[in-house]
Amino acid sequence: MSQSGLFITFEGIDGSGKSTQTRLLADHLRNNGRDVILTREPGGSEGAEDIRKLLLEGATDRWSAETELLLFMAARRDHLERMINPAVEAGQIVICDRFVDSTRMYQGLSRGDLRQAVDMLHNLMIGKEPDLTVRIDLNPEVGLKRALSRGGEEERFEAFGVNLQAKMRQGFLALAEEFSDRFLIVDGNRTVEEIASDVRSHVDAALQ
Amino acid sequence: MSQSGLFITFEGIDGSGKSTQTRLLADHLRNNGRDVILTREPGGSEGAEDIRKLLLEGATDRWSAETELLLFMAARRDHLERMINPAVEAGQIVICDRFVDSTRMYQGLSRGDLRQAVDMLHNLMIGKEPDLTVRIDLNPEVGLKRALSRGGEEERFEAFGVNLQAKMRQGFLALAEEFSDRFLIVDGNRTVEEIASDVRSHVDAALQ
Repeated sequence: MSQSGLFITFEGIDGSGKSTQTRLLADHLRNNGRDVILTREPGGSEGAEDIRKLLLEGATDRWSAETELLLFMAARRDHLERMINPAVEAGQIVICDRFVDSTRMYQGLSRGDLRQAVDMLHNLMIGKEPDLTVRIDLNPEVGLKRALSRGGEEERFEAFGVNLQAKMRQGFLALAEEFSDRFLIVDGNRTVEEIASDVRSHVDAALQ
Repeated sequence: MSQSGLFITFEGIDGSGKSTQTRLLADHLRNNGRDVILTREPGGSEGAEDIRKLLLEGATDRWSAETELLLFMAARRDHLERMINPAVEAGQIVICDRFVDSTRMYQGLSRGDLRQAVDMLHNLMIGKEPDLTVRIDLNPEVGLKRALSRGGEEERFEAFGVNLQAKMRQGFLALAEEFSDRFLIVDGNRTVEEIASDVRSHVDAALQ
């Protein structure tokens, strides 16, 4: 019997436990016999990974918010048509670390005031919302501390301070109300296992 | 006395004599004391040149028409805000080899049927039409022969045959009617000097 696919996204700042939680959820679903693909944005397909390098390397002002937005959309279109859509249509569960909600918040709210442009571009060139989005909600001070302790070349998007983290957190909570049919907000200030259990229950229910 | 800037684009397939004509026009304007910048798309600014590499290298099917369109728009946004707009505002004459009309024809007409998406993206994220566009019109068979004899890694966009060249030619003629206030169609089947003389007269008149 063929199973229907599912497209799940995780949102939360680096250091929120996203990667750990996506892996734990994938293990759980695989133990239940499901075919799972773990992916992430920007990137996730060959072409999108090439665009990712342009986006995440170089100086903070390498791109304006508008150019950055167009590059994110190009990477997403490639990822969607060459990886996500074929997998979901084949009955697989795709778990993606960040998707359009990150763009709505980062390019739409924090770097620029581009939310309207983000939505217009998304509707025109992407047109797909996730089936389920898990937002790991974290105290901004804690989140920032964790993010900065990770370092690496790709920290551009985290290096904006605690006020911005607080603004983004409010933005994500508002987004969860706007897309209440697919958003699950989980309290990220608990243990890994407590969070994983919440996520498992919710995804299992969605698969019923 | 400060002079007002001008943004001139050239359109025509590779081999139509575009590069020669842009150089000759630049020489003429400089001899008349004008400050001229020669540039080209995709590319023309540091970031846009990085995007150009993604667009013009690799297999023909490296990107879908939609992803390609978004990458062109990202490159154009960078080129516009970091190079073209500042130069024109400073009173310079910017001569650009290809601009949005190439996108309207290639991504909008030949690769995909994306003309509406091109215009929506252009209006949303670029919003600038050239002051003057010189289209070098060439017999499609002649144009294709010239283009193919040039070779190189960047020939992807020319390798589509004579029927497509004919379709594109008709498309450009229609575009010239749509934007009749800025289009100059010149017959590219004449000598270099005859063409250059046509272009000079037209630009000199525009600068009066």
